[in-house]
Amino acid sequence: MIGASGFAGALCAALVQRHPSLELAALTARADAGRRHDELYPRYRVSLPLEEFDADRVAGRAEAALVAYPHGAAAPVVRALLERGLKVVDLSADFRVSRELYERWYQPHQAPDLLEQAVYGLTELHREEIREASLVAAPGCYPTAALLALHPLRELALDVVVDAKSGVSGAGREATRTTHFVSVAENVNAYKVEGHRHRAELEHELGELRMTFTPHLLPIDQGLLASCYVTTKHEADVAGLFEDAYGGEPFVELASEPPGVRDVRDTNRCRIHATVDPASDRVLVFAAIDNLWKGAAGQAVQDLNLMLGLPETEGLE
Amino acid sequence: MIGASGFAGALCAALVQRHPSLELAALTARADAGRRHDELYPRYRVSLPLEEFDADRVAGRAEAALVAYPHGAAAPVVRALLERGLKVVDLSADFRVSRELYERWYQPHQAPDLLEQAVYGLTELHREEIREASLVAAPGCYPTAALLALHPLRELALDVVVDAKSGVSGAGREATRTTHFVSVAENVNAYKVEGHRHRAELEHELGELRMTFTPHLLPIDQGLLASCYVTTKHEADVAGLFEDAYGGEPFVELASEPPGVRDVRDTNRCRIHATVDPASDRVLVFAAIDNLWKGAAGQAVQDLNLMLGLPETEGLE
Amino acid sequence: MIGASGFAGALCAALVQRHPSLELAALTARADAGRRHDELYPRYRVSLPLEEFDADRVAGRAEAALVAYPHGAAAPVVRALLERGLKVVDLSADFRVSRELYERWYQPHQAPDLLEQAVYGLTELHREEIREASLVAAPGCYPTAALLALHPLRELALDVVVDAKSGVSGAGREATRTTHFVSVAENVNAYKVEGHRHRAELEHELGELRMTFTPHLLPIDQGLLASCYVTTKHEADVAGLFEDAYGGEPFVELASEPPGVRDVRDTNRCRIHATVDPASDRVLVFAAIDNLWKGAAGQAVQDLNLMLGLPETEGLE
Amino acid sequence: MIGASGFAGALCAALVQRHPSLELAALTARADAGRRHDELYPRYRVSLPLEEFDADRVAGRAEAALVAYPHGAAAPVVRALLERGLKVVDLSADFRVSRELYERWYQPHQAPDLLEQAVYGLTELHREEIREASLVAAPGCYPTAALLALHPLRELALDVVVDAKSGVSGAGREATRTTHFVSVAENVNAYKVEGHRHRAELEHELGELRMTFTPHLLPIDQGLLASCYVTTKHEADVAGLFEDAYGGEPFVELASEPPGVRDVRDTNRCRIHATVDPASDRVLVFAAIDNLWKGAAGQAVQDLNLMLGLPETEGLE
Repeated sequence: MIGASGFAGALCAALVQRHPSLELAALTARADAGRRHDELYPRYRVSLPLEEFDADRVAGRAEAALVAYPHGAAAPVVRALLERGLKVVDLSADFRVSRELYERWYQPHQAPDLLEQAVYGLTELHREEIREASLVAAPGCYPTAALLALHPLRELALDVVVDAKSGVSGAGREATRTTHFVSVAENVNAYKVEGHRHRAELEHELGELRMTFTPHLLPIDQGLLASCYVTTKHEADVAGLFEDAYGGEPFVELASEPPGVRDVRDTNRCRIHATVDPASDRVLVFAAIDNLWKGAAGQAVQDLNLMLGLPETEGLE
Repeated sequence: MIGASGFAGALCAALVQRHPSLELAALTARADAGRRHDELYPRYRVSLPLEEFDADRVAGRAEAALVAYPHGAAAPVVRALLERGLKVVDLSADFRVSRELYERWYQPHQAPDLLEQAVYGLTELHREEIREASLVAAPGCYPTAALLALHPLRELALDVVVDAKSGVSGAGREATRTTHFVSVAENVNAYKVEGHRHRAELEHELGELRMTFTPHLLPIDQGLLASCYVTTKHEADVAGLFEDAYGGEPFVELASEPPGVRDVRDTNRCRIHATVDPASDRVLVFAAIDNLWKGAAGQAVQDLNLMLGLPETEGLE
Repeated sequence: MIGASGFAGALCAALVQRHPSLELAALTARADAGRRHDELYPRYRVSLPLEEFDADRVAGRAEAALVAYPHGAAAPVVRALLERGLKVVDLSADFRVSRELYERWYQPHQAPDLLEQAVYGLTELHREEIREASLVAAPGCYPTAALLALHPLRELALDVVVDAKSGVSGAGREATRTTHFVSVAENVNAYKVEGHRHRAELEHELGELRMTFTPHLLPIDQGLLASCYVTTKHEADVAGLFEDAYGGEPFVELASEPPGVRDVRDTNRCRIHATVDPASDRVLVFAAIDNLWKGAAGQAVQDLNLMLGLPETEGLE
Repeated sequence: MIGASGFAGALCAALVQRHPSLELAALTARADAGRRHDELYPRYRVSLPLEEFDADRVAGRAEAALVAYPHGAAAPVVRALLERGLKVVDLSADFRVSRELYERWYQPHQAPDLLEQAVYGLTELHREEIREASLVAAPGCYPTAALLALHPLRELALDVVVDAKSGVSGAGREATRTTHFVSVAENVNAYKVEGHRHRAELEHELGELRMTFTPHLLPIDQGLLASCYVTTKHEADVAGLFEDAYGGEPFVELASEPPGVRDVRDTNRCRIHATVDPASDRVLVFAAIDNLWKGAAGQAVQDLNLMLGLPETEGLE
């Protein structure tokens, strides 16, 4: 587990530790190296120390790695691990989209030659490619919910508004004015309304589509709700489309009521309600996930299970 | 003050008590009659008792009344007070929309003959009529925010999505599973997605317009944010339209960033940010209010000020 | 699982369902019979229906039962199940204390003849008796935390103040003014300061001791902190006493810092920090639990494991 | 207003602005100089810029100053203002206690010669001295609540436990791991259990008394509750003592139930409930304040009113 001091990386470590077929070989962290994981996250009860990253040492102990570094910092680490023969799930944005999209939304790419082999790790959409991959890019939290909401309507959709609402853990562990309790409590606001970089993933997966994507920050810890408003080309059997897409999925639940994020807290599930607004004929889709589980660490383990030939749900129920 | 035991009515009482030109003559309540206001709401420090409603007694003591009864229960009380010569601001839905819309969304109307004289009390849109009115219907909380957001775009708008988010005080004082702390904390969900009755007011004011309106419940006490996504007929000077509409308004603030509901907590202000989404050419408008102030009691006092010929902002700063 | 619609009973059902050596035979509920568990609690993913209670039907399907009825309602159900040969863990107060204490704090006892065989299910203090018992009374949430905090000091303590703070789930699922989100959010208050009935358990277990016990309600969902202020007869090796008492306990953690309730959320652990206040020579003990886990359902399963000869921690990690 | 960018200083500015007899001459800030107050705190609607501090410029514009710098940084600023003839209320700890206590709990004192003229600004206890003072030290938030709770029992008290609970705004505006939303939400913990420096004020005011003082951090924004457990020398008429002490106080409310911090939110009031625990004969006192109002900015303005010969409650109702 590379980068175990942030929220997503810390949960990855906990999930791997409790996984029946995996063994947690080592933890590294850029900040907090030298401290024990359970000093930072007592609830997870992982008592390993956080070490400085050393690719050879990691390669000597592990066959696969989860990398949870910030974008930009991840790429060189991923390269070093791939070169030493490890399978890698990267939770950063570095390998999620094309070089062009990446450089438009983020910064110059550190390892463009690796992009070709990278698979976008939204399991329900790319399961077979993930099984064969050595490098999987775990999706961002907003795209996970939005893409699962929109995927069954892909052929139908003409125009989409995604009004997304996230808990504060999605903003990361860094202490800022934005994440200060007093800024968040009893508050809600939209942010990055002229462009949030998770849009790159939506564009990459959905292609040409008129779309507005607006994130909001909520006074909750874990949880993300994507409320999607879809104008379609023509009427369709919405319930049937979702049933077809997700009927056999272990981690997607179709609900008869709009989901709450509490319904999926601390689980790897995405809970979805789709309906048609009689006043506008729009299709409304509400998708709730736990941003740290299905939106980050849980999905990364789901990907890793596939890459290693393990049952997809192992360690995640 | 008629109906002072609910959240909106209780705040009306407090606002009238601290108003420099008004005197709080009496409080009535259906529940809790016999108790003192400050037993129920210590923070407001209104020490009058809650009495049973008696139209003659009220008329003997007051020239104007704020009525905060549930819809249906309000109409007969309003009639009794009007007949006795009082000016009335009614906070229920009974006089907000046409009989047809009312009966479609609510129930058979108890006083349809009074509808003609009722003025919709969204002050910024109907100021002059309010000055002349004897009966003003204070708008619902969702319509207040949504209509203030959409009003400057009225001529331009082709299609609208209103994704609205409200704190729990908007759901009223009744204890239900929905308002139980454990249902709300660390949660967010859409509700009434196939039709919330506040839609009636939006239709009444906006007329023919393709519109989706979806309310969400947030784990906050006071505060309401309407995120509005507007497809327009053509490009326009959005900043200019909002400046023209609200440049001189004492209770509407135009902000350069998306507003948070904390920015307006315990105030009668509506804080608005409007911008154009470059990806979709949609106009995005975010309007934040305190649902108990500008969304209920504060606006009712603003209306009352106008009806009584007082300065519009008196008692509300 | 008898009484699976309340918060504690619902979690009992989930814990039994995921328990590797137990099978969830049936769920009953007084309210909500006919509905499915996962309609009420989607997050737990228990898809069994809630049935009306029928002792014979339950006895035909199960060897042991967890009963989560309100006090008073539990006793007759417990009797019916014991008579049919089931082992029972009762989560109500009916069998926690002597008849005298029960009748002082609650009401006339419905089954005083069963009290003799009942064992108080605070596992760390009564492990051996629990193994042999047919009827175990799972402790209240406050006493669980307070007794684990005070137990190692039992011989030393002269005088105790227990200032306890609980999340709202401890107040139960009933919707009341007390549990309304608007009453709890951004608030904290003491309650039942002249006597909370959980005091009965403290007196029953601790015997003669000068003690003040004051509960407080916090704006959190799950979690309980007991801050204990102990005047001792003489100085002592506090760290040593706690190490001796809990060094081998799987569910008690001794921490070098005051615990937060987040540290134990959704776990069966009690996290304790004990220290001496240099200014007063008092021993300070802070004990954090999840009130629904170690304070109710988790502890009940821990008891059941012992009664059935299973590993004590099974299904609880 | 010197130091208007922190939470307490920002509220001071707002209170002075709306004060009928005061004029807000200037705002200074160490951080954020150059920005406008209402960019940082839109809700307060103070549109003045934050300037760099310059004693001469301030003295040229104002007759009195509120200083809200961190301890240590305040003393030189206070000296500069006093030398220029201004009356000063200082919200830091620099002038609250004796040099000896200060240097034990804080650091070497920067202006010990000024200590003699400084008056401790807990208005209800030192009203007459405050009227005559040029330098008043506004008390800390914890001591304000605890001292108001304990003052009427001063002669009686033998031994005291103060279990205090504060919202996060009390921890200041700095973004740290402690104030990160994810650290605080759904959490509660004691902190600084081996000694919090506000103890200095308690010792300074109460003198010799066996006392434990333990602060806790709560997931709320504004609000502070001190739960005080007092062993007395002998029985006494507790209600009478509190009535005598506070019967005429405009900002102290005696309540018949334990207060919640919501009852005093955004007010300058301290709400107190005192009772006797029948089980232990201890006197229990619960005192709730808004830590930013009565615990900081509100009290500072209350002090300033007295120093300037204005009505004590002006601008604070």
